[in-house]
Amino acid sequence: MRIAIDAMGGDYAPDEVIAGALDAIELLDETDELILVGPQQIIESRLSSLTYRKGAVSVVDAPDVIGMDEAPIEGLRRKPKSSIAVIAKLAKRDQVDAVISAGNTGVCVAAFQMRMRNLPGVNRPGIAVVFPTIEGPVTICDVGANIACKPINLYQYGVMASVYSKHLLEIENPRVGLMSIGQEDAKGNEVVKRARELMKSDSNMNFVGNIEGRDIFRGVCDIAVCEGFVGNVVLKLTEGLVDGLFRAIKHELMQEKPQLAMEFKPVIARIYGKYDYNEYGGALLLGVNGTALICHGSSQSRTIRNAILASKKYYTQRINDKITECLSETCVRTADAQVN
Amino acid sequence: MRIAIDAMGGDYAPDEVIAGALDAIELLDETDELILVGPQQIIESRLSSLTYRKGAVSVVDAPDVIGMDEAPIEGLRRKPKSSIAVIAKLAKRDQVDAVISAGNTGVCVAAFQMRMRNLPGVNRPGIAVVFPTIEGPVTICDVGANIACKPINLYQYGVMASVYSKHLLEIENPRVGLMSIGQEDAKGNEVVKRARELMKSDSNMNFVGNIEGRDIFRGVCDIAVCEGFVGNVVLKLTEGLVDGLFRAIKHELMQEKPQLAMEFKPVIARIYGKYDYNEYGGALLLGVNGTALICHGSSQSRTIRNAILASKKYYTQRINDKITECLSETCVRTADAQVN
Repeated sequence: MRIAIDAMGGDYAPDEVIAGALDAIELLDETDELILVGPQQIIESRLSSLTYRKGAVSVVDAPDVIGMDEAPIEGLRRKPKSSIAVIAKLAKRDQVDAVISAGNTGVCVAAFQMRMRNLPGVNRPGIAVVFPTIEGPVTICDVGANIACKPINLYQYGVMASVYSKHLLEIENPRVGLMSIGQEDAKGNEVVKRARELMKSDSNMNFVGNIEGRDIFRGVCDIAVCEGFVGNVVLKLTEGLVDGLFRAIKHELMQEKPQLAMEFKPVIARIYGKYDYNEYGGALLLGVNGTALICHGSSQSRTIRNAILASKKYYTQRINDKITECLSETCVRTADAQVN
Repeated sequence: MRIAIDAMGGDYAPDEVIAGALDAIELLDETDELILVGPQQIIESRLSSLTYRKGAVSVVDAPDVIGMDEAPIEGLRRKPKSSIAVIAKLAKRDQVDAVISAGNTGVCVAAFQMRMRNLPGVNRPGIAVVFPTIEGPVTICDVGANIACKPINLYQYGVMASVYSKHLLEIENPRVGLMSIGQEDAKGNEVVKRARELMKSDSNMNFVGNIEGRDIFRGVCDIAVCEGFVGNVVLKLTEGLVDGLFRAIKHELMQEKPQLAMEFKPVIARIYGKYDYNEYGGALLLGVNGTALICHGSSQSRTIRNAILASKKYYTQRINDKITECLSETCVRTADAQVN
C-alpha cells in the first residue's frame, strides 16, 4: 500500500510528521510505502540524519505552502505545488492509495473532494471524528466539511459512519443519533426534521432518534450525526472545556491541597491517555473516492503514526466498498437528495 | 415589584419552585410581591403547611399543564389555562413586572414572545445564559430561542448581551465574539459572515471577531454570539461533558486510589459550586418587552430563588431601556434587517 503524507501540515511540521512516519514503518508491511510530500530539500536533509528502512520512504517535491488563513479554493488555485494540492493529485492519478494531512482542514477538504471526487451515491463527504467516552467510542460526523447541510447529507453521514463504526471500531449494529435541541420529534430545524424522516425510513439503520449535546457522553448512541458547523463547535468546545476543567481542578488543588495536586497528576495523565482522540489518528473524510485522513493541527508524531495505521486499516478493510454497497441497497434514493 | 412564577414548571415542581419563592421573600423588599401560578388547590394546600410572610405571596389559578413533548404553539392553543400561558398573559396586561418558568423552553419562548412582544428595534429575542469559567463569566446568546437565525439577529444578540454583561455582570466594555468554525475572516457560513460585517460596522460594539468552541473557556471574550441551535448544543454538551469527565475521574480514582477519591470529593464539590450556572438563576429571554427568565428543567429551590433575585436586578436596573437606547443609537439600521 502507498500512503502519501503532507510533510508540511500542522504546527509541528515537518519534524513531528517525519518522526511519525518513520515510527509507523516498523508497524507496516515490507511492501508498504510512505511518500513524504513537501519541499524536497528540507525533507531530504531531515531524513539524512535519521535511521530508517530505506526503500520504505520516498519524497515528492511540493515547494509551496498554503497558510492557515488562506481561503481554500483560492489557496489551491494560487499554489498548485503546495503539499496538500500535490497529495490530492497523487491520489487522483492512483499513484497513492491513501492521503494524510495535518494542514488547514478547509484546504484539505476542498482539495480531496475536488481531486478524488465522491464515492458513487455520496452527495457530500463528511469528516468523522471518534470521541472516546467513558461509555465507549462515539463517532461524530460531520465536524466541518459541510456547513450547508441538506437532509440527504445528514442521512448519508449516518450510513457512512455506521459502516465505519461497525468495521473499524467493531461495534455491532451501531446506534445512530441525530443531533438536535430536544429529544422529541417536533424539536429541531427543518433540515434536521427532514433528515430524521429519511433515517426513520431506512430499516437497515439502527436509528435511535434525536439526541442532545449531553447525550454524546451518556452511552445512548455510537454515532452522532450533525451538520459541519455544529460538529466543529462540538469538537473544539470539547477540547477547550476539558482543558479548562483540568485547569480549574489544578487551580483548586494547588490553592487548598498542593500535596493532593501532586498525587492527582498521574490520574489526570491516565485520563488524558484513555480518552485521547489522538489514539484514533485523526479524522476520516468519509465519502470521497479514496482514503483520506485529516489530522489536528497540533498533531505530534504519535498522531501521525496512528493516522498512517488507521489509513491502512481503512483501506485494507475496503470500507469504501462497504459504504457504496450500503448506499446502493438503501431505500432512500438519490432522487430524494435532489428534492431535499 | 410583582413577579409571576410558573409553579408547575420543571422536574421538581411544585415543591422546589414554592420553596425557592419563599426563600426569595427574605431577600426582597416589603413592597415586592410574588404570584405563584398553577392549579390553585395544589399550591394553596402546599402553602398552608409552610411559614412565610403572608401578603408577599398570592396565587393565580392555572389548572392546565403543557407537557415537555407538546409542540409549543399547539400546546398553548389547546391549553390557554396552562401556567406558562397564564404568566405570559399577566405580563401582557401589565399585571406583573417579571415572569419566571422552569417549564418547556420552547413553550416559554413562544408564549412570552407572542404575549409580551419585542422591544422596539428588536427583530427576534434570544436566550442568554451565563457560563462561569475560570477566566470569568461568559454570556452565550442565543441558546435556543431562534433556530432560523438571520445576520441581524446575531448582531442584535451581541448588542443585547453587551448591555446585560455590562450592567448586570459589571464587565466594563464586554468583548463580543462570534461563534464560527475558525478565527479567520473567511471562515463560517453565510449568516455568520454577514453578521460579522454588521458587528464590525458598529463602533460601539467591542467586537473581537470570530471565536471557536474552545475559546469560551480561554478568556478571549465575555460574550459568545451564536444561533440558537448551536448555542443549545453548546449548553447541553457542556453539561454532559462536565458530568462525564467527573465520572471518569471518579472511576479512575476508585480503581487506583480509593483514599484519594475521598479526599478529592470536596474539591469536586467546590468546583461545582464555583462554576455553577444555577448561581445566575436561569437564562434571560433578551429582547422581549418585559422581564422573562427561563430556568433549567432540573431547577431546585436555589435556582428559583436566584432567578427571582436576578429578575429584580434586571427590572430595577432598567436593562430593557438601555437595550432600546443602544439599538436606537446603532448605525446598523432595521432596514438592513429586512435585507438580511
